[in-house]
Amino acid sequence: MASTGLDGGRSRSARVVVLGGGFGGVYTALALERLAAKKGARVEVSLVNRENYMVFQPMLAEVVAGDVGILDTVSPLRQMLPRTQLYVREIEAVDVERRVVVLGAGMTPRRHELEYDHLVVALGNVTDFRDIPGLPEHAMGFKTLADAVRIRNHVINVLEQASVVRDAEVRRSMLTFVVAGGGFSGTEVAAALNDCVRAALGDYRSLRVEELRVVLVHSGKQVLERELTPALARYATKTLGEQGIELVLGERLVAASPQSAVLGDGRRIATRTLISTVPSSPNPIVERMGLASARGRLECDGTTAVKGCEGVWAVGDCAQIPMRDGSSSPPTAQHAIRQAKVLAANVVASESGGHGRKSFAFTGLGKLGALGHRRAVAELPGGVTVEGQLAWLMWRCIYWAKLPGASRKAKVAVSWLSDLALPAHPVPLNLGGGRGARQAHYEPGEVVFEEGEVGDSLFMILSGTVEVSKRVGGETRQIGMLGAGEYFGEMALLGSSSRSASTRAATALDLLVLPGSDFAALTESMSEFRGQFERIAGARAEADAARESSSGQGRRPLR
Amino acid sequence: MASTGLDGGRSRSARVVVLGGGFGGVYTALALERLAAKKGARVEVSLVNRENYMVFQPMLAEVVAGDVGILDTVSPLRQMLPRTQLYVREIEAVDVERRVVVLGAGMTPRRHELEYDHLVVALGNVTDFRDIPGLPEHAMGFKTLADAVRIRNHVINVLEQASVVRDAEVRRSMLTFVVAGGGFSGTEVAAALNDCVRAALGDYRSLRVEELRVVLVHSGKQVLERELTPALARYATKTLGEQGIELVLGERLVAASPQSAVLGDGRRIATRTLISTVPSSPNPIVERMGLASARGRLECDGTTAVKGCEGVWAVGDCAQIPMRDGSSSPPTAQHAIRQAKVLAANVVASESGGHGRKSFAFTGLGKLGALGHRRAVAELPGGVTVEGQLAWLMWRCIYWAKLPGASRKAKVAVSWLSDLALPAHPVPLNLGGGRGARQAHYEPGEVVFEEGEVGDSLFMILSGTVEVSKRVGGETRQIGMLGAGEYFGEMALLGSSSRSASTRAATALDLLVLPGSDFAALTESMSEFRGQFERIAGARAEADAARESSSGQGRRPLR
Repeated sequence: MASTGLDGGRSRSARVVVLGGGFGGVYTALALERLAAKKGARVEVSLVNRENYMVFQPMLAEVVAGDVGILDTVSPLRQMLPRTQLYVREIEAVDVERRVVVLGAGMTPRRHELEYDHLVVALGNVTDFRDIPGLPEHAMGFKTLADAVRIRNHVINVLEQASVVRDAEVRRSMLTFVVAGGGFSGTEVAAALNDCVRAALGDYRSLRVEELRVVLVHSGKQVLERELTPALARYATKTLGEQGIELVLGERLVAASPQSAVLGDGRRIATRTLISTVPSSPNPIVERMGLASARGRLECDGTTAVKGCEGVWAVGDCAQIPMRDGSSSPPTAQHAIRQAKVLAANVVASESGGHGRKSFAFTGLGKLGALGHRRAVAELPGGVTVEGQLAWLMWRCIYWAKLPGASRKAKVAVSWLSDLALPAHPVPLNLGGGRGARQAHYEPGEVVFEEGEVGDSLFMILSGTVEVSKRVGGETRQIGMLGAGEYFGEMALLGSSSRSASTRAATALDLLVLPGSDFAALTESMSEFRGQFERIAGARAEADAARESSSGQGRRPLR
Repeated sequence: MASTGLDGGRSRSARVVVLGGGFGGVYTALALERLAAKKGARVEVSLVNRENYMVFQPMLAEVVAGDVGILDTVSPLRQMLPRTQLYVREIEAVDVERRVVVLGAGMTPRRHELEYDHLVVALGNVTDFRDIPGLPEHAMGFKTLADAVRIRNHVINVLEQASVVRDAEVRRSMLTFVVAGGGFSGTEVAAALNDCVRAALGDYRSLRVEELRVVLVHSGKQVLERELTPALARYATKTLGEQGIELVLGERLVAASPQSAVLGDGRRIATRTLISTVPSSPNPIVERMGLASARGRLECDGTTAVKGCEGVWAVGDCAQIPMRDGSSSPPTAQHAIRQAKVLAANVVASESGGHGRKSFAFTGLGKLGALGHRRAVAELPGGVTVEGQLAWLMWRCIYWAKLPGASRKAKVAVSWLSDLALPAHPVPLNLGGGRGARQAHYEPGEVVFEEGEVGDSLFMILSGTVEVSKRVGGETRQIGMLGAGEYFGEMALLGSSSRSASTRAATALDLLVLPGSDFAALTESMSEFRGQFERIAGARAEADAARESSSGQGRRPLR
């Protein structure tokens, strides 16, 4: 019932709801606004996005490096799309039968339903860490502005901490930075991170360049081999190596813990900083729509209409759109922008009886990737390739030209010019937060905490086994094993301020970590809960006392 | 044992530890670095601060307004103080007997102890919400950069939400912004907020200026009456009023809830945004040092030495330092900077036998306060007063001149110039976080949630009573009362997605709020915990069924 025949067959404007505020969604809304203004198309456009701005994704690595201001990379959607109704809400569900999008309640008490005549799905994809143990808990993604800011903050905080630590092993692990994934995002963030930590050495006199280690883990034989020609991929790989980035090729990340990144061959890299740009998955909302898809992307025809569901269209990374040569359109911004124009024209055409639908026929302008140290690689149409500083200059010029808005262009230009003269100083923006109960994953043999350490968290075992040991006299003695459902670490909360035993993962171990402050709030409110902890703490203290006086083995010696 | 007589009586350099990285602490370290470089003073300076930057406090209100970039207001300490050892750690304790400062463990497993010969306390004061019910949970402070960013983010998020809400009452409460405290901070943030939300109307077409309400609550008869002359205070009060700020004078904030600010006369202002710049308290670390103090400030003599504790000095807002006229030095940046120079000179003098100690003799350069809408007030020495746009221009020039570093000056100048041409667009920087268990305070009669609302949090009652009611047939019937230690809201978590009853505070009510995600993690790990909830949920469902079939009264009807 979407196309009601000739223009005017519907007495009101066609309601178009766009899901997603990346390049695909925003340029679709923009094209529809223009068709309405210039050709009188009767459309009423709404756009739903989690933020009220569009992120200029290609520049996120510059935020990590500190080369541009945090908000220089974003464009306010209300400014770009003055005639579009913006909903800054979570999308809870899409009902393609009823033609309704259900939005979350936000700060209000009710969900909100949006009816549509045409639905444009432009939700991109998401980094999905769920299938790799420890990744959801201990890796940072690199997809959103918040990710970029979080990475920069974390890296600077680690440098601060490392600069006053004397223990060589702890320093080394703090100064090791691991990036997983050798596509465009992974190479760009590794290169930016490498530039950023090396530049920061000027500010941290106690850190030496030999202590720094930036590791890029990639499953292929060369970085960017899927994205570029073999010659350029080789150049990119060599260039990253020359900048001191340690490349681990033909290998994958298989697990992560608070202390290490674990590779497929069993190698453990001790680190406090793990960034992963893989694996990438379809947005869960797209999956739940139950429409035809191929490898997680919605199957479209050449007009960007989703197959088998009239009135639903898709654009960008979540859409599988055939190109003229039979291959499917690659997931890049330049393709999304061209798809958006085709899509908008076809929505309007379908409202006027379906005449004049267009097919997507863009073949690409080339590819660009930044490699840090003012170097880049570019592949232009006709097989022309450019590399090194010239490509880097092209990179900056092209993206600068694409930045929306004069004031943003001016601010980025000032940042870039001042960055050529003066390097950015490492200043983190810590907004608090990040507290609350969280999970942690440990690999077999890893230490959770050592006797005598400062501690203010309580741990509950979700799965796996923990070995508890204690120094008695001069030797370390195993005093117990704890399993799923048991907890430990409560001594440090109920009185003592340092850990009275050591704990180590005997198997792969998943823990729930409850910070002291939350624990205090919980125990205060739940006297039962507190009583239970106190009984166990009492029993453990008695067991300790018994063990120490008799030097015998305790029976239920937990900590 | 601090002054060991003549220079060289101590074979090593004197260790000076500065606590705090505001104007007082930073300028003390700077003065000591200069004395070491120019006069050969043998000092080794360490500075402990929570951040690795100094915030240029007078410009924080501009961050709220979006007039300057977030990081334009900060100066990296490592750049300002190249010869000072910086410790970015929490201060856990100061032991003046042992002459040791204990730092928190940070990301490392151990606490760190810093020994000193001279200790400089420059910890300022803190906003302390603890004595006002609901303030710790529901008010935002305005003291740090994180506070300023948080306020701006919150305000923009509220505008976004309000722009798509149709319920007039909910809209009104979302568009009401309350600031408590009419000193410099309070008036500056109220003025900036007022400018910011009015400018944002251009971006939110659905919001009308009549719906906006910015309220400033102040206990005095005029704003800034303690800080300025009566004539200027009157001018400031009048100017704020002319800009549409609603002034509530001679009144105090006495409580806060998620939905309202409560005043001393019992009035409730429905709002989602409450900023409080009062009350201000001594830093708890200063209190715990157990030194002589007057109204929370360390009692010093004219040389900035703390009375009765040799080797301990104080500077800035946490120090009570006598002026020549017998009054005590006011808590402003200009005084802190001059005190710092005196302090540094006296530390060096005491190392060379105590000769040539100086006394603090600065009388002040005047006072400046911004009032929004490009207006300000200024009081210069000799009784000269300036007001309006000229004072505002002075305000910008003076603070711009004081900004440290050429690149920061350039960036702020660009931001200010582009802001004159183009207003800042409202873009929030949401970094996630803010999750985890938190507390909430409700005033008697306030609704916690309504039947049918969307909900994903569980509530535990810390103190007070909750009335539970339900619509049965056409009427609303009270079905139970819950007290301290009981919980409610678990139905929405264990299956149902909307609230099956309404809850209201029968008395003043303090709750622990556990977000659904945390609850899921907790219940998964603690089968016992989950079992308990399921048993209660089952019993409540049975009671509901019984009530509905018999239309009789349920006996244990909780939700």
